This record gives sequence, C-alpha cells and structure tokens, in this order.
Amino acid sequence: MHKGRLEAFTDGVFAIIITIMVLELRAPVGADFSALRPLLPVFLSYVLSFVYVAIYWNNHHHMFQVTPHISGGILWANLHLLFWLSLFPFVTDWAGKNHFATWPTVLYGCILFMASVAYWILQNVIIKHHGEGSLLKKAVGRDAKGKMSMVVYGIAIASAFIHVVIAQALYCAIALLWLMPDRRIERVQAPSHAKPN
Amino acid sequence: MHKGRLEAFTDGVFAIIITIMVLELRAPVGADFSALRPLLPVFLSYVLSFVYVAIYWNNHHHMFQVTPHISGGILWANLHLLFWLSLFPFVTDWAGKNHFATWPTVLYGCILFMASVAYWILQNVIIKHHGEGSLLKKAVGRDAKGKMSMVVYGIAIASAFIHVVIAQALYCAIALLWLMPDRRIERVQAPSHAKPN
Amino acid sequence: MHKGRLEAFTDGVFAIIITIMVLELRAPVGADFSALRPLLPVFLSYVLSFVYVAIYWNNHHHMFQVTPHISGGILWANLHLLFWLSLFPFVTDWAGKNHFATWPTVLYGCILFMASVAYWILQNVIIKHHGEGSLLKKAVGRDAKGKMSMVVYGIAIASAFIHVVIAQALYCAIALLWLMPDRRIERVQAPSHAKPN
Amino acid sequence: MHKGRLEAFTDGVFAIIITIMVLELRAPVGADFSALRPLLPVFLSYVLSFVYVAIYWNNHHHMFQVTPHISGGILWANLHLLFWLSLFPFVTDWAGKNHFATWPTVLYGCILFMASVAYWILQNVIIKHHGEGSLLKKAVGRDAKGKMSMVVYGIAIASAFIHVVIAQALYCAIALLWLMPDRRIERVQAPSHAKPN
Repeated sequence: MHKGRLEAFTDGVFAIIITIMVLELRAPVGADFSALRPLLPVFLSYVLSFVYVAIYWNNHHHMFQVTPHISGGILWANLHLLFWLSLFPFVTDWAGKNHFATWPTVLYGCILFMASVAYWILQNVIIKHHGEGSLLKKAVGRDAKGKMSMVVYGIAIASAFIHVVIAQALYCAIALLWLMPDRRIERVQAPSHAKPN
Repeated sequence: MHKGRLEAFTDGVFAIIITIMVLELRAPVGADFSALRPLLPVFLSYVLSFVYVAIYWNNHHHMFQVTPHISGGILWANLHLLFWLSLFPFVTDWAGKNHFATWPTVLYGCILFMASVAYWILQNVIIKHHGEGSLLKKAVGRDAKGKMSMVVYGIAIASAFIHVVIAQALYCAIALLWLMPDRRIERVQAPSHAKPN
Repeated sequence: MHKGRLEAFTDGVFAIIITIMVLELRAPVGADFSALRPLLPVFLSYVLSFVYVAIYWNNHHHMFQVTPHISGGILWANLHLLFWLSLFPFVTDWAGKNHFATWPTVLYGCILFMASVAYWILQNVIIKHHGEGSLLKKAVGRDAKGKMSMVVYGIAIASAFIHVVIAQALYCAIALLWLMPDRRIERVQAPSHAKPN
Repeated sequence: MHKGRLEAFTDGVFAIIITIMVLELRAPVGADFSALRPLLPVFLSYVLSFVYVAIYWNNHHHMFQVTPHISGGILWANLHLLFWLSLFPFVTDWAGKNHFATWPTVLYGCILFMASVAYWILQNVIIKHHGEGSLLKKAVGRDAKGKMSMVVYGIAIASAFIHVVIAQALYCAIALLWLMPDRRIERVQAPSHAKPN
C-alpha cells in the first residue's frame, strides 16, 4: 500500500486543524487596545493547542519515516488519531471562552488523553505490522515518555477539580516535555549506533 | 494524464470536508457539564459522518491504487463524487441540530445514497476506461457490497417515515459493513492468487 | 524552479475554495421539508460555483501538464488567478442569498470575467516563457474558446440590467461549454498527430 | 529527514490561511451596489494580506529549494513562522472592520513584524545547519532586504500613532518591495556565475 497518500491526507487534516482554530479568535467589536483583553484566554488556549497539534504532526512525521509499509489497520488507527485531533478546535474554543473553567479544562484534558491513547494505538499497530525487530520498536523501546504523558493527563484531569491552574500547568509541562529535542528516531536511523533502549 | 495531482486535490477536499464538519460543533455558552448535553446529537452525527468520509477516502485510496490511467471522464466522475461528499457538513449539521428528525434523516440518507451512486459511477468509468480485464474489475466483480449499500440506503430513507431510529440503525449498519476489512483490492494486487470473483 | 510545489499549493487553494463555499449553505432552523425551500437559490449558486471551480482546476491541471518550467512571473500570474477564484465563496453567497438579484448577478459575472482574464494572463505568461513553439501554444492556438468566454461574460453582465435570467443562462451556458470534453491539450501530447490549430 | 512532507504541510497551512481570510468578507445584507461600500476596507485589508501571504509562500518556496536537509530545529522554526502567519486572518479582519483604526493598524504591523522575525530565524537556523558556505547563505548575503523590512515595520507601527495612513503606506511599500523580482536565489542556483554578494 502507498504511504505517500496517507501522509498527504494526514498533512492536509493537520494543516486544517491547526489553522481553523484561529477562526475562533474573532475580531473584537471595539477598536481599542482594551478590546483585546477579553481575547487573552482564547489566544492562550490557541497557543497551547497550536503547540500540541504541531507536536503531534512532528511525531507523526518521525514515526512514518521509520514505517515502510501501510496496512488497513494502520489506515484506520491513523484516522482514529485524526478524529481526536479534530476535536481540538472545539475544546480549545470552549476552554478559551470560559477562561479555562473546571469542566472545559477537564474536557480539554480528556481530548489530550484520548489523542495520546490514539497515538499509542497507532504506534502499536505499526510495530505489530512490522515486527518486534522493526526500527520503530527500536526507537520507542518501552515508550516511557508516551506512557508517562498519559498518566500525567489523568492526574491533570483529576486535579482540575481541585484547582484548574494545576491542570493547566501540567498540560503546559507535557507540551514542553515533547518540545525538547527527541532523538529516539534519529538515533535508530543512523546506521552505525542503532540500538534498542 | 497525471494521477498524482488528481489524488492530491481529492485528498485536499477529503481533508477539508472531514475537518470543517467539526466547525458545526460550536462551544456551548455555559461552562457546566450540563452545557454539553444538547451537543450530544450534533456530536453523534459528526462521528457518523466522520466515519463515512473516512470510509470513502479509504475506498478511494484503494480504487486508485489499481487505476493506472486517468481520463477526462474519470476526472469529472471524481469531481461529481466530491460534490455529493461536500454536502456532508450541511446534512450532518441539519440532522444533528434537529436530533435526527424525520426530514433531516431523510436528507442525510439521500446524500449517502447519492454519494454511493457517484462512487459507483466513478468505479464504472474507471473500469470502462481500463477494460473488463482490469485489476479493478477483478477486485470488485459484480460489486454486491456496493449495490447492497444503495438498496439499504433506499430502505433506510423509506423507513425514516415510520421511525427515524430504523433509518439511523441502517446508516450505522452500512458504515460498520464497510469498516470490516475488505480484502478485494489487496487480493488482486497479490500477484500469485489473483482471480476474479 | 520546482513545478510540484506550485501545483500542490494551487491544489490546496482550489480544494479549500470548492469546499468552504458549502459553509454558506447553513442548516435551516426548522426540521420540515419546507425549511429547505429558502435554501434552493443558495444551493443552485453553490452548484454553479462548484462547477466553475472544478472547470478551472481541470484546465489548470491540463495547462501545467504541458508546462515544463516555472518562472517568477508564472508564480505570480498563478497567485493572481487564485486571488480572483478566492472571491467565489463571497459572490456565491451574496448571489444565492439575494436570489440572484441584479447587483449580485453583476458582481458574480465580474468575478467570472476577472478569473477568465487572470487565466488568460497566466496562459500567456507560460507561453511567453516557453516560446511560440511550445506545446501549450500549439494546444491553445488563438484560444477562441477563452476569448469567446470573456466576451460572453461581458454580454452577460450587461444583460443582467435587462433581466437577470439572461445573465444566469449565459453563465450556465459557458460552464456547459467548458464541461464538454476539450481535446486540445490531449491532442498535442499524443506524439504522432500533434499539430497547431 | 524528509523535506517533501515539511513542504506539503507548510503548503497546506499557507493555502488555508490565504483562503479562510476571505470568509471574513461576509455577504452584505442588502442586494444594492451601495451595500458593498462598507465592505471596501475589509476587501482592501484582504488584498494586502493576500499579497503578504503570497510573498511569504513565494520566499519560503525559494528558500527551501536551496535547503537540502531538514533538522528538528528547522521543523520548529518553520512551525513558529506558521504560527505568526496563522494570525493574519484575525488581524486582517480586525483592521478591515475598523477601517484601519490606530490599534488594529498597530497590531497588524506587529504581526507583520513578528512574521518577518520568524522568517529571519528560520533562515538563520537553515544557514547554521548547512554551514556558512551554503547556497542559502550565498543567496541572502547579509540579507539587507529582510533587515530593512523589519526596521520599516517598526517605523510603521510607531507612525500609526501619528497617522494610520503613514503606517498603511509603509505596509504597502514593503509588500511592493518584495513583489519586485528578487533574483538572489535564482542567481546562486545558476551554476556558472554563482557568487556571494
């Protein structure tokens, strides 16, 4: 099966998700500087979601570089990931408009959690299709980073009922964790010193 | 003629259709959990339409893998399919906002039916262009699955006037039928045991 | 310069233009069949614009198949065409919502006219870059069809002040003219019987 | 790393940004010619933003033609540029709806400035990754044009507090400056007379 078209379609969906989120940032009614102030939480939730979608695109890009073959299962696991990512504009808008109130913060976390689960499923479907000796398996190893993210999303969701700032801080922390250069896939691609971790 | 550009343009349209549907899922006014409840039918209609667009993209992808040449007729049959798919966001929104009332359910079924007719036309234009001995002809055979879907859409539309739940159940059933792994095209691509069915 | 990326970007813009027009087709408030009736002119203007954008994509596709090289001038002539095409969603919406009243009909025609002028400029910039002996020059010849379209748009715009139905009929007639199979480019691509017309 | 996918994703984002800006150009309520008049500033701000996004796409296209390798840093510098460009629809709408009042004009200039800074960062990340002897370094030299643009944006932002027309004129002037054919990259690509400037 043809990898190029899956990547092209996925890139299209990523490009649209990352861009239509900005449509929720509507021009304020007044022309004063103060008219921008109510937009600040909407803008901040846009920035956070932009970074998350960018991280997913980046990781997806890397993962498919070490994915030589595509199966029907991979296609559907990929569409499943895109489904959860497609809900980002909705939760971004709800969270932004309500200044990250409790329930919007919880739902935002749930979508982050479901997207990370969907990514983990996709990763496992690809590894299963290519075998335990595959480059992707070597690169992700036991995938401590991915598993930890899922656990932290769970903690963040629970902590939103105590104080939303804890949840927000955890969402930002995980984004920063993934922004740090991740050499796992570059390492296995370099022919001489590829080894499982 | 160049297959790549038709695929790229089609992928773009598919990516936009599947993503803009989520724009109808507008952030509710309140920040309570209960504010989400009225969105449930809109969300469910979004899920169903997402699955349908994903199935069409999947099948389109497979069909064009066994389509070596493109003609003017294929280009237009493809655009005709995209036209009906482009109406998905509209009917999804109407059906979702009216809790799948009778007429929105009927119109939803009509668009599903027209899209399946357009897909069937595209398939036949491709087969006609490549001859009866083509790989696609071998793969689809008499296309019992495609024809059955069209008949069931017709039954579903009629049954919506009795009770909309019957129609909804049938729409979901056909989606599940197409979600089942379909090996028709993979089978003819495997060189040794390709045979018409 | 790299033709692939110009085509990919152009396909993206075409795909978005053709798809976002459907966003103007908003779900009506009621759930009755009669609630759809006011949408009919909006739907018809959507169909006409869909066909026009499809024709432009089709012709663009053909034109770039016989365009081996890209220059800075071609890039900007292409962006100029995309600018006028990007106004289609706006005029489609205005014309549809006002049942093709006089001024919306006039503006719709002006955008059709400007898009055809932009296409003609793009074609000439490509021919100038590749020389009079180029395949594209052989294919379009004196481009009677393109020039006639521009003249008919002018007549249609003027006739809208007499009766909008004349203008609408002319817009549909030109769309049908371009929907007819156009073998000009296929002919010059066939190696043995390519000759200028 | 794979350049094609970065370009495809970037082209998708560019295509969406340039197209969704037109969604702010909403069909007026009346059907008279006079109903279009209030749209004029929105239309003019759309034209200016369209030209700017087109210039960025054009320059991006040229820059990546002399960029053989992609690194993680380049990916993120590119996403950073896309972030600022994604705010164009928002500032275009705000500036257009307020007839380029002081603060919308200032914010418009700030986004132009940040986009030019992001472009400059991307350019430097690419040069750093490929070394001082790289084709891109040869092409941009000391990048007087890029640096001057940043300075002029700063002057324009300050002058908006004196009179917005000065700022608008400067925004248009820089757009025209970049519309002028820029042979820097073509020159270094021509094998025989490539020399650093």
